[in-house]
Amino acid sequence: MKIVTDELHYSDGYVPLTGLLVRPDVPPGQPSPGLLLVHGGAGLDDHARSQARRYAALGYVVLACDMFGPGVAGDRERVVSALTAMRDDPELLLRRSGAGLDALRALPNVATPCAAIGYCFGGLTVLTLARHGADLAGVISMHGSLATPRSAAAGSVRAKILVCHGARDPHVPLKDVTAFIDEMQQAKADWQVIVYGNAVHGFTHADAVPGAIPGVGYDAAADRRSFHAACDFLAEVQPHPATSAGHRLCDDKS
Amino acid sequence: MKIVTDELHYSDGYVPLTGLLVRPDVPPGQPSPGLLLVHGGAGLDDHARSQARRYAALGYVVLACDMFGPGVAGDRERVVSALTAMRDDPELLLRRSGAGLDALRALPNVATPCAAIGYCFGGLTVLTLARHGADLAGVISMHGSLATPRSAAAGSVRAKILVCHGARDPHVPLKDVTAFIDEMQQAKADWQVIVYGNAVHGFTHADAVPGAIPGVGYDAAADRRSFHAACDFLAEVQPHPATSAGHRLCDDKS
Repeated sequence: MKIVTDELHYSDGYVPLTGLLVRPDVPPGQPSPGLLLVHGGAGLDDHARSQARRYAALGYVVLACDMFGPGVAGDRERVVSALTAMRDDPELLLRRSGAGLDALRALPNVATPCAAIGYCFGGLTVLTLARHGADLAGVISMHGSLATPRSAAAGSVRAKILVCHGARDPHVPLKDVTAFIDEMQQAKADWQVIVYGNAVHGFTHADAVPGAIPGVGYDAAADRRSFHAACDFLAEVQPHPATSAGHRLCDDKS
Repeated sequence: MKIVTDELHYSDGYVPLTGLLVRPDVPPGQPSPGLLLVHGGAGLDDHARSQARRYAALGYVVLACDMFGPGVAGDRERVVSALTAMRDDPELLLRRSGAGLDALRALPNVATPCAAIGYCFGGLTVLTLARHGADLAGVISMHGSLATPRSAAAGSVRAKILVCHGARDPHVPLKDVTAFIDEMQQAKADWQVIVYGNAVHGFTHADAVPGAIPGVGYDAAADRRSFHAACDFLAEVQPHPATSAGHRLCDDKS
């Protein structure tokens, strides 16, 4: 499917934000399901851009949103400061990601409800949106942080949840996974957790230099498997004739 | 896809066994990938038969094997005795399931290596095959028992492993899941575990009477999701043009 790419300018209060909008090249008046994509700790980088293209090629209108604003990405001190501020202040995290979600929803030809996917810090972000009852069909966390200072209240989660986790992720140990499972059960959410054997943190980062950052690395099997799981999940939560992920040739014939 | 169904008679030593063979109706000389299907604790029942049809409809040659032999299914005392004997004697379990695998492999037009799928007791069975290095492309455990008296040795597992587990399964508590994860990591196996929120034991049993057996129940979402996960898994471990599960329209276009 041919895709088109544009910058999308929006803002969170006085903070100007610049996202990347990647859309299937379809005639006007033909809505496609919307997908908010939240980058990892480095900001809106090549990884986030390539992931946005990956899902747009399936027929989704993808907004790879900007959680930092200008002058942060690439400056280690400012990045750490921005990430810490949002991690410690869920209201800020919700407002900043909510601005992206609002910008996506305001576009013409976006079928709602939208879904959201996030990587590492972005996984924490989309799970925070889900915990606070955001109007999303589903959220996907890819090697995201699962711990939270504020657990989801019973009945608060409206979005279906898919968590894809690497078993050897030193940043998100197994005890965080079991605590997340307990939290989701208490919250009575609709959730799934997939644990990929041998995968470490950041397993979708095809360009990760092996050994460059301890505990972070690409895992081709976990990347492919989690992409397929995400396709199935999106097809379930956003069934739509415009997305090829919605067409499964293996659908039950029994 | 049209399917044909036959009984298949084979044996484990002096014990005569009668499996159900369910095949796609394709011309002779056109091999299809083989799938061994191992029933749950009740024996080769309607659930196992319907699951066999489900996968045969995708293009697999499915042998729903017989782990009990004559005169056991339907007799509660004999069933418990047979299950206990196989649970406590991995050699017996391996020999009995291996007889089914040999019978499947000996059929004309079965592409090898085969894969195996099992439910409840059958999940334990296929994982035992994997732990002991059976020549299988992959094994799938659906709400299977994960505890084992004999852990897999490092490097012993040749089959890729997919475990589909219900988070509220009282027969397989979360501590068994984390112990299994530890075991698989130690064994350096290629494995994935999917935990489905809210699902209890036996979540694929569409005919389960709600409340009839405590902790056992159908879960339509977990059933559908685990079937899709199994389709993806089989397409990965047994790529074959004859199976519709192998055709994914959402394959990566980025």
